[in-house]
Amino acid sequence: MAETDLPAAKLSDTARAVAFSDGVFAIVITLLVLELRVPEAPPGQLLSGLLSEWPAYVAYVASYLYVAVVWLNHKHAFGHIRLMDRGLHWANLWILFSTALLPFSTAVVSEALRRGNLTDERVAIAFYALIGAFMCLSWLAFFEYLRHHPQLTHDKSEPVFFRQESTRAGAGVAAYIIAGVLGFQATPTVALMIFLALPIFYGVTDHGLYELTVVVRRRRRRG
Amino acid sequence: MAETDLPAAKLSDTARAVAFSDGVFAIVITLLVLELRVPEAPPGQLLSGLLSEWPAYVAYVASYLYVAVVWLNHKHAFGHIRLMDRGLHWANLWILFSTALLPFSTAVVSEALRRGNLTDERVAIAFYALIGAFMCLSWLAFFEYLRHHPQLTHDKSEPVFFRQESTRAGAGVAAYIIAGVLGFQATPTVALMIFLALPIFYGVTDHGLYELTVVVRRRRRRG
Amino acid sequence: MAETDLPAAKLSDTARAVAFSDGVFAIVITLLVLELRVPEAPPGQLLSGLLSEWPAYVAYVASYLYVAVVWLNHKHAFGHIRLMDRGLHWANLWILFSTALLPFSTAVVSEALRRGNLTDERVAIAFYALIGAFMCLSWLAFFEYLRHHPQLTHDKSEPVFFRQESTRAGAGVAAYIIAGVLGFQATPTVALMIFLALPIFYGVTDHGLYELTVVVRRRRRRG
Amino acid sequence: MAETDLPAAKLSDTARAVAFSDGVFAIVITLLVLELRVPEAPPGQLLSGLLSEWPAYVAYVASYLYVAVVWLNHKHAFGHIRLMDRGLHWANLWILFSTALLPFSTAVVSEALRRGNLTDERVAIAFYALIGAFMCLSWLAFFEYLRHHPQLTHDKSEPVFFRQESTRAGAGVAAYIIAGVLGFQATPTVALMIFLALPIFYGVTDHGLYELTVVVRRRRRRG
Repeated sequence: MAETDLPAAKLSDTARAVAFSDGVFAIVITLLVLELRVPEAPPGQLLSGLLSEWPAYVAYVASYLYVAVVWLNHKHAFGHIRLMDRGLHWANLWILFSTALLPFSTAVVSEALRRGNLTDERVAIAFYALIGAFMCLSWLAFFEYLRHHPQLTHDKSEPVFFRQESTRAGAGVAAYIIAGVLGFQATPTVALMIFLALPIFYGVTDHGLYELTVVVRRRRRRG
Repeated sequence: MAETDLPAAKLSDTARAVAFSDGVFAIVITLLVLELRVPEAPPGQLLSGLLSEWPAYVAYVASYLYVAVVWLNHKHAFGHIRLMDRGLHWANLWILFSTALLPFSTAVVSEALRRGNLTDERVAIAFYALIGAFMCLSWLAFFEYLRHHPQLTHDKSEPVFFRQESTRAGAGVAAYIIAGVLGFQATPTVALMIFLALPIFYGVTDHGLYELTVVVRRRRRRG
Repeated sequence: MAETDLPAAKLSDTARAVAFSDGVFAIVITLLVLELRVPEAPPGQLLSGLLSEWPAYVAYVASYLYVAVVWLNHKHAFGHIRLMDRGLHWANLWILFSTALLPFSTAVVSEALRRGNLTDERVAIAFYALIGAFMCLSWLAFFEYLRHHPQLTHDKSEPVFFRQESTRAGAGVAAYIIAGVLGFQATPTVALMIFLALPIFYGVTDHGLYELTVVVRRRRRRG
Repeated sequence: MAETDLPAAKLSDTARAVAFSDGVFAIVITLLVLELRVPEAPPGQLLSGLLSEWPAYVAYVASYLYVAVVWLNHKHAFGHIRLMDRGLHWANLWILFSTALLPFSTAVVSEALRRGNLTDERVAIAFYALIGAFMCLSWLAFFEYLRHHPQLTHDKSEPVFFRQESTRAGAGVAAYIIAGVLGFQATPTVALMIFLALPIFYGVTDHGLYELTVVVRRRRRRG
């Protein structure tokens, strides 16, 4: 559909934004596969060579799962969007930008864990927390924008959804900052557990907190 | 179409899953081209330089053909799917994850064959068999999920198709485990032949075992 | 839709050109993420290792933002296009070609700034200006082509839009040449400020100069 | 549309094949940008460092233009296709496979020209001719397949088109073999000129030889 057919000539449908985002997500999710290379081990040492690359494997698995969760959340969020304007495009581009940094920050952490130097581990965790908080901030901006521009959404009467999504993103910002400070000041282990918990939380709640509360309530009734 | 228009707000059509999968497949299938580089041969030695890179060529061809077979199977399977839910998304993401590992495991085997150390060859073959079994397992999960969620498919009355697809995937898991054990314990040659046979089998049966049996029966009648 | 259904069998709709362009843009925008690697710092020196990679970060941010602006402009321009012919395809391919060079020229500048050699900085700035002027030239060709082929556009009666877009692209060519000469002959700082100003200008005016003048006029009335 | 709705359950529309092909083409066309890196020149030597990378630039430009021509031909050919079956999928996958090799063979030639060793130049030219002939062979197979499966095309009454396309592809196979033999036995210059002429020929005739003869005839009448 031509954009000129749309109300204000400044709005467009989501087709290209979605296609472009899927392209970026597809690249980002396979990015760390490029880091998996045949080890240059001496003859007969291929096994130990392969095993010594474990931080690359951990980083690949962790960032793959995280980007998958982000993609599912992105997909669900765009299911509520009817039109895009410039502001929403930039919010989306910010999400893509910060997601593209996930493999890098994940690789920094897994490499630091392999080297085992405590100072480096703390730096790596603070760095990862920084990128994580930055990404949650982009989601917060995205949902806040949608909350204040209901004309861009399918169902103008459901601002509850976007308010809850904002809360979910804001909680992520807070959790990453706490994890970063804890990991940098005290022990990295607690921070790593928060890092692990957050994508799981976002993966389980990718259809919004609202749905989760409904599900929880139903189970309580049954239980 | 907005997801909110769909029955349960948790279901969506396959459009974005397909677009995203095609993006990942396109990257994975061209991944090993990145490994093809102009050899750093001394003057006049370009030919031998090019020839000495044969493991990279073999790996490129082998993984290209395999990913092509996976893509054709993926395309055919999605022809039966009407709706996606979270579980099916994760099964699909698992398929993409394991397919993305194929170029790496293929490169490990071809490099080990070039080096010619028997211990390394066995390790490489066991590694390849592991990745292969892991990929077939993802297909098994995918088809089992579809078999138990007929509401997601186009033709609810055809559970035979998904049962046969599960069998096909399960046979792959078994074959890779057998090949891995044979290759690791005995001679790598038998394992390599199984590795070669499996993508051919999946390529020939990409429309399902059912169709194959029909074709075979018809030919028998004619013959 | 089959191309044979279209008027002259030489024209086609924009679907594949848009999908292909989005693919190229998605790759180009994530290209510099590949340059972000875990630094090979000695134990305990991860922080300084990460910080010393700042030119890579600056280059990533700068080229990401620029490619995002190009994508938004591309998206808006294609909203006016109804049909493609061979000439328009080549103009579009020229835009993609020159956009794909942006990350490289950006990396050259940021690396030269890190090294701090004045001769190199001037060369890097002249190089960046060359690529920038080349990209604006591709947009100029694109809009001039559309201006002279109104049958390819949605709204044949709006040649004003394409004339203004041509002006905008032509101004970019001029600005990059001026920045290149200034940066090479005199001080790099002025050139860098022009480099910074241009994407901002194109980002703010991605819906055309016309809209901007309308907005400015409205604000004046209010003010 | 579900494939099960289609005549034989073995046929499908071209949507996913086109999307997947565009993904591969987008990656292949930007592949050589990855080779453009900031030169490691000593201070003040950035200019000569950049200039010394000319083979990478030549290879990038040459392979970009060639892949662009292939994409335009692919787009035009698919405008005639209504349905895909397994054979056509494999012919298409063969085209993608051989196109993905173009950047590599182009880099081999440009690097050999830079090094200036005559033996290496001949090897490089023979290698490039081999890949080129292999790619034209894939197009020949593609068009021959379509010629013998008119039910897959939009306009069953136009077998002339596919016969001419086969001729065009066959001419390419012959020209590459001749160029390869000439370049290997005699002087590389003639071969390079044939290499240059072929993409130009395919670029000019991307709507088929038929159209070209029509255009030529018209011009004669006018002239």
